[in-house]
Amino acid sequence: MAYVAPEGEFNRDTQYIETRITADGRDGYPVEPGRYRLVVARACPWANRAIIVRRLLGLEDVLSIGYCGPTHDERSWTFDLDPGGVDPVLKIPRLQDAYFTRFPDYPKGITVPAIVDVPTGAVVTNDFAQMTLDFSLEWAEYHRPGAPQLYPEPLRAEIDDVAKRIYTEVNNGVYRCGFAGSQSAYDAAYDRLFTALDWLSERLAAQRFLVGDTITEADVRLFTTLVRFDPVYHGHFKCNRQKLAEMPVLWAYARDLFQTPGFGDTVDFGQIKQHYYLVHTDINPTHVVPKGPDLSNWHTPHGRESLGGRPFGEGTPPGPVVD
Amino acid sequence: MAYVAPEGEFNRDTQYIETRITADGRDGYPVEPGRYRLVVARACPWANRAIIVRRLLGLEDVLSIGYCGPTHDERSWTFDLDPGGVDPVLKIPRLQDAYFTRFPDYPKGITVPAIVDVPTGAVVTNDFAQMTLDFSLEWAEYHRPGAPQLYPEPLRAEIDDVAKRIYTEVNNGVYRCGFAGSQSAYDAAYDRLFTALDWLSERLAAQRFLVGDTITEADVRLFTTLVRFDPVYHGHFKCNRQKLAEMPVLWAYARDLFQTPGFGDTVDFGQIKQHYYLVHTDINPTHVVPKGPDLSNWHTPHGRESLGGRPFGEGTPPGPVVD
Repeated sequence: MAYVAPEGEFNRDTQYIETRITADGRDGYPVEPGRYRLVVARACPWANRAIIVRRLLGLEDVLSIGYCGPTHDERSWTFDLDPGGVDPVLKIPRLQDAYFTRFPDYPKGITVPAIVDVPTGAVVTNDFAQMTLDFSLEWAEYHRPGAPQLYPEPLRAEIDDVAKRIYTEVNNGVYRCGFAGSQSAYDAAYDRLFTALDWLSERLAAQRFLVGDTITEADVRLFTTLVRFDPVYHGHFKCNRQKLAEMPVLWAYARDLFQTPGFGDTVDFGQIKQHYYLVHTDINPTHVVPKGPDLSNWHTPHGRESLGGRPFGEGTPPGPVVD
Repeated sequence: MAYVAPEGEFNRDTQYIETRITADGRDGYPVEPGRYRLVVARACPWANRAIIVRRLLGLEDVLSIGYCGPTHDERSWTFDLDPGGVDPVLKIPRLQDAYFTRFPDYPKGITVPAIVDVPTGAVVTNDFAQMTLDFSLEWAEYHRPGAPQLYPEPLRAEIDDVAKRIYTEVNNGVYRCGFAGSQSAYDAAYDRLFTALDWLSERLAAQRFLVGDTITEADVRLFTTLVRFDPVYHGHFKCNRQKLAEMPVLWAYARDLFQTPGFGDTVDFGQIKQHYYLVHTDINPTHVVPKGPDLSNWHTPHGRESLGGRPFGEGTPPGPVVD
C-alpha cells in the first residue's frame, strides 16, 4: 500500500463519520451503558487518545473496548489478537465489517478509534477528535468518582487553540515528514514540526501542563505523539533534529504524563513499533523492526513536580488497569 | 541496486587488490613523491581513514588526492564534483576507468579508497586496511616533521587486536544491521554491535585513546564509524539502542578526536548523509535525506583532557587543511 505522497506533500483525509453519541441521543445514538464498543489499536496515536480518556474518566464499565492488532492489511484493521481472530463481543474478524454494516459501500479508510453499536453491529463514529470531547461532556453522568475535568468550560477556548496547533503541526506534522514524497516537501514539513516543538518547549518550560494547572484534553493529544517520537517518528519518519530524550522540557513533560496513571499504562511500545515499521512498506521495504531505542529511560525522575500544578485538579488518579 | 542481503545476514566481500606501494617497490610500485593519486569520497568511512592518516602524517605534498562525489551509480564512483565531471589529474570521469585500465574485466566492486598510478592511469590498490598502515610504514621518509607514530612497533600487536574487533563488530557491524535481510539477522547484528560498543565504552572510560596514551591507527578506524553514527547509522541502519550522543564515554571520545586537527576537518556530514540515503534505495526508496540531526554538538567541550594522554606523542598536530 502506498503511504508516501506521490505529489510531494502529505495531506490527511480528515473526513470522518460525524454521527455523535450524545446524552440527548439527537443523532439516534444516546449515551447508554453497555450499548457501545470502542474499537482501538494500541499502536495508533489517534486511538491512544480514546484509550487514555476512557481510562482517566473511568468509563471502562459502561463502554467496553476491543483491541485490533498492531498491523492491518490494505483495507482494514483486524482482530487478529483475539482467539480465533474474532472480536469476542462484535463477533467480527475485521473492523470493516462494522463499517459495511452501516455503510455497505463505505469508500474511505477503515480507521481506529471507532465506536460500534453492539446491538446492530454498525459503526457509529470514527471521528477521533470529537470522540474524546464527547467522553468528557456527553458521558459525564457515567464518569467515575474523582474523574478529572479534561475539557472544563472556562478553559475550552484555550484548549481548542492549543489543540488545533498541536494537531496540524505535531500530531499530523510527524506524518507530513514521514510520508513526504519529495525532498522539498520533507524539508518544509521538518521545519514546521520543529518550530512547533520549540514553541511547546517554551510554553512548557515554566508550566507543568499545557493549559491551566491540571491535565486537560490538550495534554492527552500531545502525549500520544510524544510517546511515539523516539521509538518511531525520529527514525522511521525522519523527525530527527533531536530525539525527544534530547529536548529537555518536552522529555520531562512526557515522562511526567507517562508516569501518571492513565497514560503510560495505555502504551505498548512493541505494538507501536510493529505497526509503523511493518505497515509502511513503502518507507521500510525490509520489514525489519528496530530493536531500539532503549526505553527504560521513560521511568526516570522528571522533576516536573517542582513546577506545581495538580494533575487531576479536585479529582483523583484512576485506579489500576482493569481490562 | 540491492544492498539488503536476500539470505538474511550481510557478508562483506573482503577481497581487495592487494598490490602494495612499498619503499622497496617489490610489487612494482615503489613509493615515489608525485607519482600516485589517492582517490576517495568524503562520504565513505573506509576512504575517510585514508584521508585522515594522509593528513596526520603530512603526505599531502607527495600523494595527491581526488574526490569522488557522495553518490555513485550501480557500477562506479564518479568525479561528478569536478569541473566537467572529470578528475583533473587522471582525466577520467569514473573511477572504474582506472580499474579497467589495469584489469579490463575487473569483476568486483569499484571501491574507494583507491590509489592510482598517475603515469599509467591504472589502479594500484583498493586494500583500505593495508593502505593506511603503508602510509605509516612505507611512506615514512616523506612524513611531515612532527608526524605522529600511528602504528608504533611496540603497540602493533595490541593495535591489531583492537582494530580487528573494531572492524568485524563496529565498522562492519553497522552495515550488518542496516543490510540485514531478515528480522533475526538484524536482531543478532544489533546485539553484536552494541556488545562491542559497550566494550569500547568500558575500555575508554579511564583511558583517553584506544591503545597507549596517544592517537594510533586504532583510533582512526573507530572514529570513522562513530562520526557517522548519529547522522546515518542510528536511523538509516537502525543502530538505535542509543544515539552516540547518548553514550557518554564514546561521545566524549569521538568529540575529542573530532576536535583534533586531522579528524573533524576531514568530515563532510552533508556528503555522508547524501551517500547513504540516496544510494541505498532498497532501504530508503523515497530518496529523502533527513535534515537532522543537529550536529552543532560536535563542537561542545568533551572533558577528555583530564584523562591525560598526549594526542600526538612526541609529535605535533597537522597544520591547516591545504587541499
